[in-house]
Amino acid sequence: MAIQHAHPGQPVDVQPLGPRLALERTVALFKSEDLEVMRLVLLAGKSLPPHQVAGEITVQCIEGSIEVSAESRPHVLRAGQLLYLRGGVKHSVTALEDSSALVTVALRK
Amino acid sequence: MAIQHAHPGQPVDVQPLGPRLALERTVALFKSEDLEVMRLVLLAGKSLPPHQVAGEITVQCIEGSIEVSAESRPHVLRAGQLLYLRGGVKHSVTALEDSSALVTVALRK
Repeated sequence: MAIQHAHPGQPVDVQPLGPRLALERTVALFKSEDLEVMRLVLLAGKSLPPHQVAGEITVQCIEGSIEVSAESRPHVLRAGQLLYLRGGVKHSVTALEDSSALVTVALRK
Repeated sequence: MAIQHAHPGQPVDVQPLGPRLALERTVALFKSEDLEVMRLVLLAGKSLPPHQVAGEITVQCIEGSIEVSAESRPHVLRAGQLLYLRGGVKHSVTALEDSSALVTVALRK
């Protein structure tokens, strides 16, 4: 299915996916001048390998729980918690249970 | 009470405030190089008058419902919904019920 990115001012649902989670994939909600926002879907035990982006990011756990490792320090993020990481910091993400998270990336020019 | 801003990697609670909402105020969660994140608390009928910031913003309604007006177009945002606005767009926010929202601002340099 083609992904329809949100336009400015258009409300997008970011509630927990609940029973649909296992059927969903990570999607970009929008990418604009300064910000990119995606909804990460990661099933229990799955990981995003270490990677980095130039700008700062926030990670907000919507449901489940994830471990965000940055600079070799693991941070457990539970539903309803948010953290930020400085730009250029290598980080990995592992789902401790079936999880979704909102990831906001500051796009550096 | 002094506000302790979050550090990189430090989980911050952004759950609904529930019954505590009426006692809470808007707080900055952190301000760093590229991003500023605040939790807006707005009681029913209260407004933020029209204002603008240079960079793009996202507004995520955590609880209640708010009306975000940008370029004279109102957008109702309910709990669990997010929208973004382009930088420099004048906008106002009115709480339709007691509400809190997460506001992320891209800091343009």
